[in-house]
Amino acid sequence: MSAHATLIALLHGPDQPGLVARVAGWIFERGGNILHADQHRDREAGIFFQRVEWEPAFAGPTMGEAAPRRPVDLLAAEKEFTEFARSSLGMQVRMLSSADRPKVAIFVSKADHCFHDLALRWKAGDFACDIVAVVGNHPDLAKAAEGYGLSFVHFPVTAETKGAVEAKQLALMRERGVELIVLARYMQVLSADFLEKFGAPVINIHHSFLPAFAGGRPYHQAHARGVKLIGATAHYATRDLDEGPIIHQDVARVTHRHGVEDLVRRGRDLEKSVLAQAVRWHLDGRVLVYGNKTVVFD
Amino acid sequence: MSAHATLIALLHGPDQPGLVARVAGWIFERGGNILHADQHRDREAGIFFQRVEWEPAFAGPTMGEAAPRRPVDLLAAEKEFTEFARSSLGMQVRMLSSADRPKVAIFVSKADHCFHDLALRWKAGDFACDIVAVVGNHPDLAKAAEGYGLSFVHFPVTAETKGAVEAKQLALMRERGVELIVLARYMQVLSADFLEKFGAPVINIHHSFLPAFAGGRPYHQAHARGVKLIGATAHYATRDLDEGPIIHQDVARVTHRHGVEDLVRRGRDLEKSVLAQAVRWHLDGRVLVYGNKTVVFD
Amino acid sequence: MSAHATLIALLHGPDQPGLVARVAGWIFERGGNILHADQHRDREAGIFFQRVEWEPAFAGPTMGEAAPRRPVDLLAAEKEFTEFARSSLGMQVRMLSSADRPKVAIFVSKADHCFHDLALRWKAGDFACDIVAVVGNHPDLAKAAEGYGLSFVHFPVTAETKGAVEAKQLALMRERGVELIVLARYMQVLSADFLEKFGAPVINIHHSFLPAFAGGRPYHQAHARGVKLIGATAHYATRDLDEGPIIHQDVARVTHRHGVEDLVRRGRDLEKSVLAQAVRWHLDGRVLVYGNKTVVFD
Amino acid sequence: MSAHATLIALLHGPDQPGLVARVAGWIFERGGNILHADQHRDREAGIFFQRVEWEPAFAGPTMGEAAPRRPVDLLAAEKEFTEFARSSLGMQVRMLSSADRPKVAIFVSKADHCFHDLALRWKAGDFACDIVAVVGNHPDLAKAAEGYGLSFVHFPVTAETKGAVEAKQLALMRERGVELIVLARYMQVLSADFLEKFGAPVINIHHSFLPAFAGGRPYHQAHARGVKLIGATAHYATRDLDEGPIIHQDVARVTHRHGVEDLVRRGRDLEKSVLAQAVRWHLDGRVLVYGNKTVVFD
Repeated sequence: MSAHATLIALLHGPDQPGLVARVAGWIFERGGNILHADQHRDREAGIFFQRVEWEPAFAGPTMGEAAPRRPVDLLAAEKEFTEFARSSLGMQVRMLSSADRPKVAIFVSKADHCFHDLALRWKAGDFACDIVAVVGNHPDLAKAAEGYGLSFVHFPVTAETKGAVEAKQLALMRERGVELIVLARYMQVLSADFLEKFGAPVINIHHSFLPAFAGGRPYHQAHARGVKLIGATAHYATRDLDEGPIIHQDVARVTHRHGVEDLVRRGRDLEKSVLAQAVRWHLDGRVLVYGNKTVVFD
Repeated sequence: MSAHATLIALLHGPDQPGLVARVAGWIFERGGNILHADQHRDREAGIFFQRVEWEPAFAGPTMGEAAPRRPVDLLAAEKEFTEFARSSLGMQVRMLSSADRPKVAIFVSKADHCFHDLALRWKAGDFACDIVAVVGNHPDLAKAAEGYGLSFVHFPVTAETKGAVEAKQLALMRERGVELIVLARYMQVLSADFLEKFGAPVINIHHSFLPAFAGGRPYHQAHARGVKLIGATAHYATRDLDEGPIIHQDVARVTHRHGVEDLVRRGRDLEKSVLAQAVRWHLDGRVLVYGNKTVVFD
Repeated sequence: MSAHATLIALLHGPDQPGLVARVAGWIFERGGNILHADQHRDREAGIFFQRVEWEPAFAGPTMGEAAPRRPVDLLAAEKEFTEFARSSLGMQVRMLSSADRPKVAIFVSKADHCFHDLALRWKAGDFACDIVAVVGNHPDLAKAAEGYGLSFVHFPVTAETKGAVEAKQLALMRERGVELIVLARYMQVLSADFLEKFGAPVINIHHSFLPAFAGGRPYHQAHARGVKLIGATAHYATRDLDEGPIIHQDVARVTHRHGVEDLVRRGRDLEKSVLAQAVRWHLDGRVLVYGNKTVVFD
Repeated sequence: MSAHATLIALLHGPDQPGLVARVAGWIFERGGNILHADQHRDREAGIFFQRVEWEPAFAGPTMGEAAPRRPVDLLAAEKEFTEFARSSLGMQVRMLSSADRPKVAIFVSKADHCFHDLALRWKAGDFACDIVAVVGNHPDLAKAAEGYGLSFVHFPVTAETKGAVEAKQLALMRERGVELIVLARYMQVLSADFLEKFGAPVINIHHSFLPAFAGGRPYHQAHARGVKLIGATAHYATRDLDEGPIIHQDVARVTHRHGVEDLVRRGRDLEKSVLAQAVRWHLDGRVLVYGNKTVVFD
C-alpha cells in the first residue's frame, strides 16, 4: 500500500522495441515513481502487454501559499498518459487508480454461499469497491443483504418478462453508476443485448472446470462422467454462454465416494474462492482482456 | 507388505444387507485373515463395491512329511471364493494375488518421458509386474528400452498397414502372455477390433483434463481457450476414443506467460505422474470398473 | 444419508486375526446392516483401527399393538456393542449416532473469519451439531453471533483473572452440556487444568504448517524464514501447546511479493477451510485419536 | 526463446525513485530491446529487486566487409552494464546470458531418483548447462551416469578422510570449471570450509517442508508427528545445515495409511520435481539471493 494514490495502466498493442523504456521514461520525466511494472510479450501474436503502477508527482505548492502539498489531478494525469500510450505507442489502454472505489452490483438467486463470501470479504476490506446493489431474481437473500447494510432489489424473472426485467435492471445499473456486475450464482443468463447496453464488465462463476461441463447441471455431468477432480471457473460474461475470457480456475479432488450432493457441497468452497479471487484481481486492475483470453498480472 | 501371499478380490453387484459380514465370515471360517477391506455403496444405483485383501490359511504339512509348511494353492482359493461370490452373493468378481507378476507391454512412439518414468519406477520396484515388451511404431526408443534390459519391438504403422500391424501386435501380445498394455504416449489409436480381441485392460494417458480437450493437440486447444490449469488423464482405452473410464487425473497451474511449448513441457510432468499412479493402482488391484466409471480403492 | 438412525463405532486395540469378521458378524447376527466399514492396521505398532457404521435392526411391534415400528433404543445398542468390543475383542471404543446433535461452543477473540465461516456452514446444514455458546474474551463478535441467533457470552481475560475466568467458562460449558469446544482463532491458551476438567475434545486452528512455526506470530516467522508455502493446522488442544494430535493441514503458495499482511490475508482462507473440515470430520465420527496422532476415516 | 543471445541482470539495492526508468533507458539508448523486466520492492526493508533480460544491439559489419552481422561482445556489454548498475544506481548485480552453458557437477550417494530425473531433463534440453561431473561417495550410480555419457568420479568418504576428500573434490571442481553443484540426495554434509572455498552456488534438496523436520530422517520425524502433508525443500547450501535460502518447496498429502516406507516413496516424486524446478530457475537466472531469502522471478 502506498501512502499516495497511484495510477495503474493496462496496455496492449503491437510489440516494438523500446516500449518498456519509453513508458518508464515518460513517467520518470514527469516526476512519477514506478512501483510495479510487469510486462509480457506474446511472441506468436507479436503483442506486448503491460501493467504499470506509479505514483504521479506532487504538484508543489504555489509560491507564497501555506497550503500543504496536494496530489496532482489524477484525472488529468490519466488523460495525459492515455493520450501518450495511444498516439505515441499505438497501444490500447485502460486506466484506474488506487483512489477509485468502483460501484459494484451483485446478482444472486437462492444460493447464498458466494454472496456471503463476497460480502464478508468486502466488509473485511479485501475489495476496494462500493457494493451499491444486490439484485435477486428471488427474494431469498433480501434479509442477508440487509444484514450487511446492502440495498437488495428484487426483480422476479420469467421467460415472458425477461426482456422487460432486463430493461429495469439496466436502468438501475445506470441510476446507481454500476461499473461491474458480479454474478454470484445468479441462475439467469444475461442476454447479449443486456451485456452490450451495460457496456461494463460482468464476472460470472461457473461451477465446472471450463470448457468441461459447460451448460447446465455441471456437477451432475461431472458425476456421470466419473471425473476425479471438480472445478470452478470465473470468467467475463459474453454473449456466448460459458465462452467468455477465463480469469481464474481451480479444482478439488473427488472420489467415487462423493455423490452429486457431495460434489455440490465441495464445489461451493471452490466457487467462493475462485470468484472472490477473480473479483479482487479485477478490482486491483490486474486483468487485461484481449481476444477471448486474459492476461492476469498477479 | 505381508510375509505371505495375499488374495485380493474386487467385487460389485446388487446391494443387500449383510454383504460385509458374509464376505468376512466366509474368509474367517476358512482360516483366512483380512488385511484390508474397503467397501462403497452407490445409493442411487443400489450397487455394492468391495475390495478385500486377505491371507489365506496355510495348509499344514502332511503327517510324517518333513516338508515345510506351504501356502495353500492360491488358484484353488481364488476359484473357491469366486464361486462363492458369484453364486451365493450374486456379485461380479475379479481376483488377483500379491504373488502375481502380470506381464505388461508398453506401447510408445517418439516421446520418451513417460517411458523412462515407467521403466525407472519399475526398476525401483514400484510396479509388481514383468515388462515383457516395449512396442514402438517408431524406432526412436529402441536403445533406451534396451538400456533397461527390455525387449523392444518395432512395428511401423501407416494408414494402409494398420490392420495388418495390429494383427501382428496381437500375436505378440498372445505369444508373450500380455495381461496389460500401457500406452505411454503412443500416438496411434488402437482399433475397437484390437481392443476386443486383446480382451485385457489397456491404460492410456491423455494430455488434458478430460472431458475438456479430447482429441488431438490438447495443449494447443488449451492455449487457444486460455485456461488457467492444464491437466492429464489416465483412463482405460475403449472403442470410443478418450471416453473410457477415468482412473486418475491431475492438473497444474499455467499463466499467460506459458506458450504452447511451455504447456507441453509442464504437461510432461503431469503425464508421467498421472500415468504411473494409474498403472500402480491397476497392478495393486485397486481399480474396479463399472459402467464407464471407476472405483479406486486407494 | 440413511433414512434411519445409524450407529458409528470407532475402535482400536491390539491386532488379532478375524477382527473384521467378528465385528461384522456381531452386527449381522443382530439384524444390523453395515453401511460403511473402514479399517487400518498399523503393522509396526500391531494396532487395529476401525470405523464401522450400521443401521441397527428395528424392534418389531409387540403382538396386538397397533403401534408403528420404532427404532430400537440406540443407547441400548450402543451399550451392548461397547461391551462386546471391550470384553470380547479387547478394543477401546468410542460410539456416536447419526441421531446425535452434540452441543458445541465456539471460542473467539477479535478475528471473525473463522467464526463467520463456521456459522454459515452450520446454517447451511454442514455440521450436525447445536452451537450453544459463542464465548469471546473480547466483545467484538457479540453482534455477529447474535445475527446468527447464537448466544454470545463475554469473558474478559487478564493474566490475573485467567484462573477465575476459566472456572466460569467451565461452569458455562457444564451448564450447557458442551461436548466440543472449537477455538476459532481464540487468542488465549486454555490451561492444562481447564482441558482436564472439561474432559471433552477441544479443536484448535493454528495458523502455520505445524510443527513449523509453532508459537506466536507464525506468519511473521514464515516471512522471516522466506518459505514458499504457508499453512494451517487443525489439531486437538492438549496441555502442550501446538503439540496435540493433528486432524488436518493444508498449504498455499506464497512468493517474495507477499508481505506479512498478505500472508495474513491469504492465511485466513486456509484457516477457515482447514478448521471447518476438521470440525466436520470430528462431528461425523471420522477422527480416532491414539497416542499423539489421528486416524481420519475420510 | 530469442533467436539472439540475451543478457540477464539480477539487481538489488536501496530503493530510489526512477530505477525502472533508468535501467530501461540505459538499455534502450544502447539499442537493446528489453524482453522481460520484473521488479519487486520490499517496502519494509526499502530494497529494490529487478530481473531484466534484453537483446543487446548488434554491432554492424565493418564497412566493406562481407561478414555476417555478429553479436556484440556479450562480455563487454555485461561489464558495461555491471559498471553502470554499481556506480550509477548503487545496486549489487549478477549477470548471465542465454548463451551461457554453465558447468555443473551433480553429487550423489546411493539413491538414484533425483539423479535420473536431472539427467533425463538435461538430455531433453530442459537445462541450459553442461554436466561435467557426477561425484559419488558410493560407486552405485557409476553405471547409470555412464549410461548418460556423464563422467562419474568416486570419492569414498569416511569421518577420518572427509577433509582430505573435500580437498580433492574441490580440486576437481576447479579443474573442470564447475559453477554450480547440485546435491541430488548426497548424504554428506559439505563443510563450511568447502562451501567457502568453492565460492559458487550449491543447491541441496531436503526431504521435508523446512523448517519442519530439519536434520536427519525427516520422513521418520514426519511419521512420528502424524502430519497430514509431507514436503520437500530445495535451498542453497550454507554453513548452517538446512538453514540456507529456500528456492522452492512443495507438499503432498499423506494419511494414516502411509507408513514410513510409503512416505519415502511418495517423497521421491516431490524431491525430484522440487529439485529440478529449483535447478531450472537457477540456470535461467531467476533466483536472486539476499540475506537468507530468495526472490524468484518466475
